Amino acid sequence: MLLSENLTQAKEGQRISAKGYAIQTKDSNFESFSFTRHALGDYDVLIEIYYAGICHSDIHSARSEWHKGIYPMVPGHEIAGKVVAIGKKVSKFQIGDNAGVGCMVNSCGECESCKKSQEQFCENGKMVLTYDCKDCFHNNEPTYGGYSNNIVVSEKFAIKVPQNAPLEKVAPLLCAGITTYSPLKFSQVKKGDKVGVAGFGGLGMMAVKYAIKMGAEVSIFARNKKKEKEALAMGAKALYDSTSDIQERFNLIISTIPTAYNPMEYVNLLKYGGELAIVGLPPTNESVKTDMTRLIFNAGKKVYGSMIGGIKETQEMLDFSLQHQIYPEIEIIRANEIDKAYTNLTNGKAKFRYVIDMNTLES
Amino acid sequence: MLLSENLTQAKEGQRISAKGYAIQTKDSNFESFSFTRHALGDYDVLIEIYYAGICHSDIHSARSEWHKGIYPMVPGHEIAGKVVAIGKKVSKFQIGDNAGVGCMVNSCGECESCKKSQEQFCENGKMVLTYDCKDCFHNNEPTYGGYSNNIVVSEKFAIKVPQNAPLEKVAPLLCAGITTYSPLKFSQVKKGDKVGVAGFGGLGMMAVKYAIKMGAEVSIFARNKKKEKEALAMGAKALYDSTSDIQERFNLIISTIPTAYNPMEYVNLLKYGGELAIVGLPPTNESVKTDMTRLIFNAGKKVYGSMIGGIKETQEMLDFSLQHQIYPEIEIIRANEIDKAYTNLTNGKAKFRYVIDMNTLES
Repeated sequence: MLLSENLTQAKEGQRISAKGYAIQTKDSNFESFSFTRHALGDYDVLIEIYYAGICHSDIHSARSEWHKGIYPMVPGHEIAGKVVAIGKKVSKFQIGDNAGVGCMVNSCGECESCKKSQEQFCENGKMVLTYDCKDCFHNNEPTYGGYSNNIVVSEKFAIKVPQNAPLEKVAPLLCAGITTYSPLKFSQVKKGDKVGVAGFGGLGMMAVKYAIKMGAEVSIFARNKKKEKEALAMGAKALYDSTSDIQERFNLIISTIPTAYNPMEYVNLLKYGGELAIVGLPPTNESVKTDMTRLIFNAGKKVYGSMIGGIKETQEMLDFSLQHQIYPEIEIIRANEIDKAYTNLTNGKAKFRYVIDMNTLES
Repeated sequence: MLLSENLTQAKEGQRISAKGYAIQTKDSNFESFSFTRHALGDYDVLIEIYYAGICHSDIHSARSEWHKGIYPMVPGHEIAGKVVAIGKKVSKFQIGDNAGVGCMVNSCGECESCKKSQEQFCENGKMVLTYDCKDCFHNNEPTYGGYSNNIVVSEKFAIKVPQNAPLEKVAPLLCAGITTYSPLKFSQVKKGDKVGVAGFGGLGMMAVKYAIKMGAEVSIFARNKKKEKEALAMGAKALYDSTSDIQERFNLIISTIPTAYNPMEYVNLLKYGGELAIVGLPPTNESVKTDMTRLIFNAGKKVYGSMIGGIKETQEMLDFSLQHQIYPEIEIIRANEIDKAYTNLTNGKAKFRYVIDMNTLES
């Protein structure tokens, strides 16, 4: 049995063998893949992965749409599971604890940003992404993500998950959750604010749920009216399939759109002093270029990008989500259904967040 | 004498005859031009113009670089002079008072923005620019600016100027002053903040002076080191002629650059939470397009445009400027030297803000 083998490896300081699903080139399909992870360090935990969410950015990465990927690639940065072994000096976790891993697995820990737990902005360039990244703390070996049966990670980058939490729903929070929670906090959304959410996929839905819970009046901008019923059921005020006739103006609009669009369309809808937070990142070849100096004609409206969130804020987001029972709508799939899920996501046919059940990995 | 003629016209409710310098097409030179202004309304003041500043946007307008201009065009929205006649219901001014006029001469007065004295954002689209604009309050006749001997304006849009103020230096404050003062207030610059100013012309110099007076540590980004001595003498910390090796990071950068550039160059120099305020507007054909979604890689840094400021804030700016003796560096020119001034400004050869002495208008 693989787990007992892993425990022995952990105990003896050997590399940890792992199994997962990898893509070999940007144009291939996913295939079963065996590999090893770095040995368990003193401050590391070994997590047995139960569930891994599929994020739209997994597709961008797997298809080399943002930059040339490192292959074979095991994507996945929405990871939930159980701690099965801990390094000698680990204090944050005990064996048997639930734990999650998001987009990062390490950073320098010494710069101003790291000290403020904004590890995603590590000023020494040592932030290590969960996959498709060279791990400068481990001989620059490539990192492999959550479409696999285990992960070894520094305890600092593992998120504490209560024992009664629904792990399949916790997994997607670690990217989709923090990515949308963070700008809502950054823009200090408060009761009565008008919040708009552009794009109503995995990220958009989370943004809507958080914003409503924070007391905002939430409207959605989508490609069509297909999900209107769902939107209203969530508590949204309206779902618009066109921005042209909207009279109301917003304090904050979060754009989760992962394809080409013109940000000025949403800047137009902001109140004076309002903010457009961009969290969706289209493929490089689809980007729409805008003349930023034209913001003068929409003066007093701020545009910023937001990229996930720090570890401390990720923990805060998770606690907030569990406290208020804010979870993504998910559809659990088998490990051999990743390609199909990617196709559906690309075609806009995915209704819910796909989460891979790692029990379905063939051993 | 023209003034006595004007006074008679004002008294008798006739149109006010005026003389100035106009450009007939986007490619012509300035020529002496006689025209009339609308009659003095109950709430209007007639101002004899003593000085009019030349703003870079005058050139963009005169050359139809932003949009097709209305010709003949009398530019000028940095106007200082003396009230020589007042409408029956005017309460803000008395005859003999100094007064200024900036970029706007009217707005609806009823919308939310106007009520908050952010007339530049009039939601009913009724903001009337001082020149190159159709005046919807006066049969859509074109407005003529300050390169002339008088102006008739609603008292609400005239700025109070103390009797002892140096009018030649007050004039440029009404655009260059408010344009740079407003974003400093909007971004709530405070003592100890690091402020960067990109572009060190008429606007840039004002931004530097205000920011220093507000207690900020100010650096300048310029095309070359030519004005370094001047910058340091003003109290700036540094003048950089390249952004590539700058290590420090800024709370606010104000870009006054009126030509093509890449705003991301300055976003890179912001602190987390810092802001880039764009106030310079390049000609449409020079604009550099940027993919705004790439702000994600500079997350937590906000970009906004700022367009002049409301009347209330303009008055506040003027009072602040006079209190702290903050004035532009100016060079007084004759009315027949406008073309030469435009050439120098376009070639980056203007050292100071040009201000036209209206006494030099041939009668």
